[in-house]
Amino acid sequence: MKFSPALMDLIEALRCLPGVGPKSAQRMTLHLLERDREGATALAEALQYAMARVDHCQRCRNFTELDICEICSDSRRDRHMICVVETPADVLAVEQSGSYRGLYFVLMGHLSPIDGIGPVEIGLDKFQQRVVEEGIEEVILATNPTVEGEATAYYLSDMLLPRGIKVSRIAHGVPLGGELEYVDGSTLAHAFSGRRKLEQ
Amino acid sequence: MKFSPALMDLIEALRCLPGVGPKSAQRMTLHLLERDREGATALAEALQYAMARVDHCQRCRNFTELDICEICSDSRRDRHMICVVETPADVLAVEQSGSYRGLYFVLMGHLSPIDGIGPVEIGLDKFQQRVVEEGIEEVILATNPTVEGEATAYYLSDMLLPRGIKVSRIAHGVPLGGELEYVDGSTLAHAFSGRRKLEQ
Repeated sequence: MKFSPALMDLIEALRCLPGVGPKSAQRMTLHLLERDREGATALAEALQYAMARVDHCQRCRNFTELDICEICSDSRRDRHMICVVETPADVLAVEQSGSYRGLYFVLMGHLSPIDGIGPVEIGLDKFQQRVVEEGIEEVILATNPTVEGEATAYYLSDMLLPRGIKVSRIAHGVPLGGELEYVDGSTLAHAFSGRRKLEQ
Repeated sequence: MKFSPALMDLIEALRCLPGVGPKSAQRMTLHLLERDREGATALAEALQYAMARVDHCQRCRNFTELDICEICSDSRRDRHMICVVETPADVLAVEQSGSYRGLYFVLMGHLSPIDGIGPVEIGLDKFQQRVVEEGIEEVILATNPTVEGEATAYYLSDMLLPRGIKVSRIAHGVPLGGELEYVDGSTLAHAFSGRRKLEQ
């Protein structure tokens, strides 16, 4: 004997959430049925809306339900600078540090040839095109300080420097082996102000 | 700057799940959008189906999408015995122990006068009616070994004993696999007072 089919299905479905095992999924299911049916219905609607509408911004590849995201279409931002990050959470972290007012490009990952993730998979063809078309003068490489992030940054600098574009890598304050998403704002601000110019 | 509205709504909606804070909700949202949109859509459907269909079994108050749950309508079970538990999770725990083949009654809580939860709120009017109508002979009180659970068990025994119904309380004592050294004093006191004589 188990729970009834509708409950079992919900318990199983909740396991698509990262960090939710069978026991938590069971607890969540009973909690929602007992105490928060309204919240559960709102969650179902938010999930459906987001999955149906949210796609990548056509310019920066960040998640948005618009064609061009709010940052890319914000005329008050410095349009000659692009900060390259790995994930949407990294954009949020950089924004929260308040130390950057340019545009972004979100790789949605990093180069990882062993997993079949090459330059095209992280949108570098689109990025290169953007750099040319939009007359970008400076690129800040804010990929994670991990082996893959560093390799991706190196690849990018190799692509940009011959074009005479000013390229820098965030440096100070970001601890190696950590993830950008979890770095506090002032550390990130240090990382931005202390960026080093890369030479050919 | 934050995420776009659809993402912010989903992050907020996920917080209805117990144990999910702002950071986990953000991580879940990005994970679903990046890697498991199918799972997210299935989750939305499972939530909507469960919230629309699942109600209490008319006999035992357990959660089910049927009028009468599978346990209550199972003719192979002993129909003269009822085990009273606090939550649907307790039913599952008892079932998994494989030590009981009778029926259940789920209180969906316990007596707690300070919170306005009296006998009617935990369905004891319905329970009393069932005991009479179904000719129940034995009731096992399996409420939690907490102050409220004990009080609820005491209230139930007080209600049932005058009707000549056999009433028992599940044994409290040292859990199997545990070490005596780490068992708390009141549990040990129960273990001693409830000791069973061994016969040759």
